[in-house]
Amino acid sequence: MKHALAAALLVSLFVAPSPADKEKDVVKSVQRTGDGSQVCGLGKEFHAGRRKELMNRLEEGYVVVRGLPTPRSNEEFTQDKVFWYLTGIESPDAALVLDVKKKKEILFLPKASRMWETWNGERWDVEDDWVKKLSGFKDVRPSEELVEELDDILKKRAIVWVHLQPHTALSDSYDTAIKFVNERERDPLDGRVSREETLKNHLEERFGVEVRDCTPVVNDMRRVKTPEEVDAMRRAARAGAIALAEAMRAAEPGVGEWELDALMSHVHIREGADGPAYAAIVGSGANSCVLHYLDSSRTMRKGEILLIDYGPEVDHYVTDITRTWPVDGKFSKRMKELYEAVLEAQKAGIAAVAPGKTLAEVNAACDKVLRDKGMMGMRSHGACHYIGMEVHDPGDTFAPMEPGVVFTIEPGLYDRKLGIGVRIEDVIVCTEDGAEVISAAVPKELEEVEALMKEPGILELLEKHGE
Amino acid sequence: MKHALAAALLVSLFVAPSPADKEKDVVKSVQRTGDGSQVCGLGKEFHAGRRKELMNRLEEGYVVVRGLPTPRSNEEFTQDKVFWYLTGIESPDAALVLDVKKKKEILFLPKASRMWETWNGERWDVEDDWVKKLSGFKDVRPSEELVEELDDILKKRAIVWVHLQPHTALSDSYDTAIKFVNERERDPLDGRVSREETLKNHLEERFGVEVRDCTPVVNDMRRVKTPEEVDAMRRAARAGAIALAEAMRAAEPGVGEWELDALMSHVHIREGADGPAYAAIVGSGANSCVLHYLDSSRTMRKGEILLIDYGPEVDHYVTDITRTWPVDGKFSKRMKELYEAVLEAQKAGIAAVAPGKTLAEVNAACDKVLRDKGMMGMRSHGACHYIGMEVHDPGDTFAPMEPGVVFTIEPGLYDRKLGIGVRIEDVIVCTEDGAEVISAAVPKELEEVEALMKEPGILELLEKHGE
Repeated sequence: MKHALAAALLVSLFVAPSPADKEKDVVKSVQRTGDGSQVCGLGKEFHAGRRKELMNRLEEGYVVVRGLPTPRSNEEFTQDKVFWYLTGIESPDAALVLDVKKKKEILFLPKASRMWETWNGERWDVEDDWVKKLSGFKDVRPSEELVEELDDILKKRAIVWVHLQPHTALSDSYDTAIKFVNERERDPLDGRVSREETLKNHLEERFGVEVRDCTPVVNDMRRVKTPEEVDAMRRAARAGAIALAEAMRAAEPGVGEWELDALMSHVHIREGADGPAYAAIVGSGANSCVLHYLDSSRTMRKGEILLIDYGPEVDHYVTDITRTWPVDGKFSKRMKELYEAVLEAQKAGIAAVAPGKTLAEVNAACDKVLRDKGMMGMRSHGACHYIGMEVHDPGDTFAPMEPGVVFTIEPGLYDRKLGIGVRIEDVIVCTEDGAEVISAAVPKELEEVEALMKEPGILELLEKHGE
Repeated sequence: MKHALAAALLVSLFVAPSPADKEKDVVKSVQRTGDGSQVCGLGKEFHAGRRKELMNRLEEGYVVVRGLPTPRSNEEFTQDKVFWYLTGIESPDAALVLDVKKKKEILFLPKASRMWETWNGERWDVEDDWVKKLSGFKDVRPSEELVEELDDILKKRAIVWVHLQPHTALSDSYDTAIKFVNERERDPLDGRVSREETLKNHLEERFGVEVRDCTPVVNDMRRVKTPEEVDAMRRAARAGAIALAEAMRAAEPGVGEWELDALMSHVHIREGADGPAYAAIVGSGANSCVLHYLDSSRTMRKGEILLIDYGPEVDHYVTDITRTWPVDGKFSKRMKELYEAVLEAQKAGIAAVAPGKTLAEVNAACDKVLRDKGMMGMRSHGACHYIGMEVHDPGDTFAPMEPGVVFTIEPGLYDRKLGIGVRIEDVIVCTEDGAEVISAAVPKELEEVEALMKEPGILELLEKHGE
């Protein structure tokens, strides 16, 4: 499938939707089947494999991981990333208990509630007999009895592993979540600890067990993606590239930053995404220099640069692509100068990717180009971060990479006096041979960008539709 | 190609955009100015008026209300509704302290941080000299010193009013938030209380004051909208009606529920909205009978009904409109039977609106129609709820209404055997004379719906764009 897609992308001028998408076998999302049927994540084998790997690495004790409850907002439920990684289950109020030595796996799901389902639709419950077949769990018990079951299962002074890193779901990332949790804990008028810390405290107090944090082990597993995960990341990159290419077609003086944001969200949902991995950065003019500019509240003007840093989530994996181009299609001398330097730096970074190298080395390769040009004074951030289920995925910048490690390369230069920020970002998979750029379908060569901008855009169509 | 196509699409019977929108003076949003400038809510006078009214009603003591911190997610900051109502300030880490007797008002904003603003853009801070002019606050102090300031301000055993009802922001409503908070508190492996309850505990313990809940007073104020609020609700209803009409044009067999969801979100952002008031309910076939169906994961088919219950937020006020129509444009006999009954019930409800009447009486007027037809067995929910800053706004169903009270009327009938759910919902403002239907721009008369469905839709345009 992905070979067909890649081949088609080579012959087509860029994307949106590519001829390959006309073929029946283009998979936009494995979870959105279109018939409303229930799906277990990337397939029960993938998630069972993750549990097996985790138990092999932990060697002893029990694992207790809780899924998320029904949301606080009037929004669709989205699952805790780590719970999903270990189970594939996207339904509220579930929990997982593993006996590491005995390789025993228990899934907890809520009791059936006709009232709940009349109001909210299907919720995976303990009475749904298809759950075992779909999820691969043989032992499914009621979530309402989790505490009593733990009373039976957990021996005093047993080792119990929990995932202490704050939970993340759609549009979250661990770094932002940790910062929020820490600031709340330090807030003299709040002070509440995280859901995960609270679970730890209850386990210690109620069951007298020794709680340990399995986060480092899970994060290490997550750093190297399986083929299923890389495929999901390709789907996310595909949806993101198509949407960003549409933004290039649609951008012009007089368009609001928010219009491109809305356009990309529309396109990525059509292309299989579940939502944004993070609020898109759509910064025109001086806003291009605000690294995490989220307001999208300005109308873009002639003569300005536009920087879009954006990525949707497909099947629980995300993408993160940045492109920069002039609002009116014409690069000024200064824009061109910065753009060419950033592009050269990014290419140097991509060329430095190979098994055994580290993200820090890739970053240094980008920096060398900028330093040689005497432009380091305009560099405001590092060039690399891991990516996976979260836009900033956990991982050590100094760990040697291996095939299946996925990260972004995003050098940037910011001339704050002129209000010209330039950043170019792609998602890179480390392969046996070097790097594969899975977000390459949206152009970044100067002439290609200029050509794509000239193509008719969707916003123009919509304007005419409204007339 | 696209010009010829667009020319064929000039016919526009109902909305999207309405002829009025051609005029320069159509206000889509007062907060999205397009020049990226800071705005104080609906204007400093409106918010000052709300504070004055609150202090008049409370008569004594102090008020302490905190705004929300920087989000846990990689999403744009959205403010606590009540904090915004009292201040107009849409920036993180702010707080409000009122001395009710002395009519003293203190706004707390974070200290200036160049690092924060380099990364995230403008944040209202204590050093921004435009804050006083824009917000009307004369006394602005650093949030970091809130506790020390409270030490000075609050006398022992003073009465301190807090808003104990759980905070709500974009896409929240108080009922869902309360349920979440209560379930978390009861959860034997969690048990944490709300941010508001935590504030109450800190105030009592640290300052030895008597904390009282001002929620009933604030909720009573919120029940009767000022002219500024009704105007904001008109803007929300306008954006929602335009988007829903586009969904009617675009729906057809083979379209995914998610596609209409994405289309409406795209259109409402263009029309001035900040986002959805709640996840849209886009239910085809049997999903039309799931009252809060949020999955939007099914491809709709010929012969089925489609129910969309949807509303965006504009300038912090929301709308909530439901329309039901056949996917293929043809009402079956049974669909027509249910549709006509629901429409008649809704009209009876609207006719019952007048100052002095209650929501319970309006609901009874809807029910009478359904009861007379012997259809009460297919009625699954009440017909009325308040609406305002939240899709379910607080308020007493048995309180006599007065001009400025805003609510929805949404009778529904659900034939679960055939998988035909029909609901029709509009947003109603009680006026001196009776009812004004502010969401009327999206058609509901059977023939009008059939006519609108025949018009060319945006999805068709997008398909052609991709070719």
